Amino acid sequence: MEAETFTLILDLMGTFAFALNGGLTAVRAARVDLVGVITLGMITAMGGGILRDMMLNVQPATFQDWRYLAVAAAGAFIAFAFSWVLHRMAIPIEILDAIGLSVFAVAGAIKAMNFGFGPVQSMILGTVTAVGGGTIRDVLILRVPSVLSEGLYAIPAFVGAALTVAALELELNGVAAAILGASVCWLIRVVGVYFKLNAPRPPRVEPGNLQG
Amino acid sequence: MEAETFTLILDLMGTFAFALNGGLTAVRAARVDLVGVITLGMITAMGGGILRDMMLNVQPATFQDWRYLAVAAAGAFIAFAFSWVLHRMAIPIEILDAIGLSVFAVAGAIKAMNFGFGPVQSMILGTVTAVGGGTIRDVLILRVPSVLSEGLYAIPAFVGAALTVAALELELNGVAAAILGASVCWLIRVVGVYFKLNAPRPPRVEPGNLQG
Amino acid sequence: MEAETFTLILDLMGTFAFALNGGLTAVRAARVDLVGVITLGMITAMGGGILRDMMLNVQPATFQDWRYLAVAAAGAFIAFAFSWVLHRMAIPIEILDAIGLSVFAVAGAIKAMNFGFGPVQSMILGTVTAVGGGTIRDVLILRVPSVLSEGLYAIPAFVGAALTVAALELELNGVAAAILGASVCWLIRVVGVYFKLNAPRPPRVEPGNLQG
Repeated sequence: MEAETFTLILDLMGTFAFALNGGLTAVRAARVDLVGVITLGMITAMGGGILRDMMLNVQPATFQDWRYLAVAAAGAFIAFAFSWVLHRMAIPIEILDAIGLSVFAVAGAIKAMNFGFGPVQSMILGTVTAVGGGTIRDVLILRVPSVLSEGLYAIPAFVGAALTVAALELELNGVAAAILGASVCWLIRVVGVYFKLNAPRPPRVEPGNLQG
Repeated sequence: MEAETFTLILDLMGTFAFALNGGLTAVRAARVDLVGVITLGMITAMGGGILRDMMLNVQPATFQDWRYLAVAAAGAFIAFAFSWVLHRMAIPIEILDAIGLSVFAVAGAIKAMNFGFGPVQSMILGTVTAVGGGTIRDVLILRVPSVLSEGLYAIPAFVGAALTVAALELELNGVAAAILGASVCWLIRVVGVYFKLNAPRPPRVEPGNLQG
Repeated sequence: MEAETFTLILDLMGTFAFALNGGLTAVRAARVDLVGVITLGMITAMGGGILRDMMLNVQPATFQDWRYLAVAAAGAFIAFAFSWVLHRMAIPIEILDAIGLSVFAVAGAIKAMNFGFGPVQSMILGTVTAVGGGTIRDVLILRVPSVLSEGLYAIPAFVGAALTVAALELELNGVAAAILGASVCWLIRVVGVYFKLNAPRPPRVEPGNLQG
């Protein structure tokens, strides 16, 4: 199998995972209908890439290849039809979703570098690719985007994008750089889910401290 | 009257209807001031076209012709000043809004095809043109976008865009294709409003079923 | 000091002020973590310019100069670390924020004119530059954007942008036009904060009136 086919398969897996998870989140969190579940699933899968491409000032890649649209629609439709049984499969879906996060973070960072963006900018755009779709979905169903408030989601994406960019800057082999970044991102994400890790919160003056 | 003048008039009618309805929705749903009503009305009218043009990677058309800005601002201002009387005119406003939906869905799909997008992509962008502005408005006033949760709004837009695209692919006359798509969209929307039709909802295990 | 250096310093001051204030707003209003505060602070500082550049159909300027990213990240991080003491410094922060509003409104309008947009369109894009970042932040933390509902925020930005555009149309010196627009914007904003001025609200039939 060639590197390109491998990338395409991973990319479509990520798209499917995000659409499925996005659709399920929509079913769980809000009173939405068929249109809502399909739309929110597809936005979860494609929104991050669209945001990235808007900032790169190019036409969104997801609109140029029908396979992304088809896979995203399929994932969202499966979430609509089978949500009642899929809700019991939280762990395999989280692991699949972590693959999506890793693939999108790395692919987004590489695309930004190919368009001449600087290293830090490419890391940011890789992270935006990975977390952007879920953020738009959360806003549409009136949730504070979970990426801003709990769990480790942006951090593994940023670390994965940063490792990939650093490896490319050090002129490592492109495929090796991508695999390195994606694996580390996936690992941090899965460990974070398992141990329920969180990013630090802003220091506050607790009411209890004032009385003491 | 030439086809172009006819299209322009329809387009401006749609812009006015969306700005008016968007402004009224803002007045009803949230505690907003003059700036809020004008902004939300104009976003309702112009947001869908701006989203479409961002994805086509061109400058938003609404910024290139002052008439769109003027008509959108006028519609929103009328909503601000006369909301107390316009709230009693729900039915004519719904019918006017349905014209906006139809015109925008068809015009958006045609523009996407003219920029070389594929048929399915053009149907999606036509739908985005029609429902995008209202969706941004709903998010700004903290409502789950009604397009995701109730009534038939995206479905008539998608059907209208799809019919237009199909007719153009079959090399029908452009004006005929547009009139066909827009009429069917308008009809489905108005029938949907009249009979309070909804898209199907995700299947759920009802609490009642578990106890039985 | 040259005009360009002066502009850069003002621009970076505005970026810092918006990132600081945006981060503090995030800490106050929502249960967000480190990632959330940094992201929301940076979005407040850079979101308006990104929206403007998307509509101008160019790559966002903030991604092309690492100093904007660095200053935005620094402002947001200071908000994260020192929110407990900065909350007592509301007035100096409001004044600093008003500088950001003025600089962004004027700079946004000038950039739009340089890209060949019409005068009214440039005023609108100047206003979007000034208020866009705070609006995206508010949506992400589920607040009705304050720009739509209270205080004078969009109005000083629009007046500042309009004065600058008008002065440039009258072929005044560019630096003078910018200083004029920014000063008036800053003044209206600060006076508005001090006297708690609001834009007019839509007329309503008050329940009390009906009973009388």
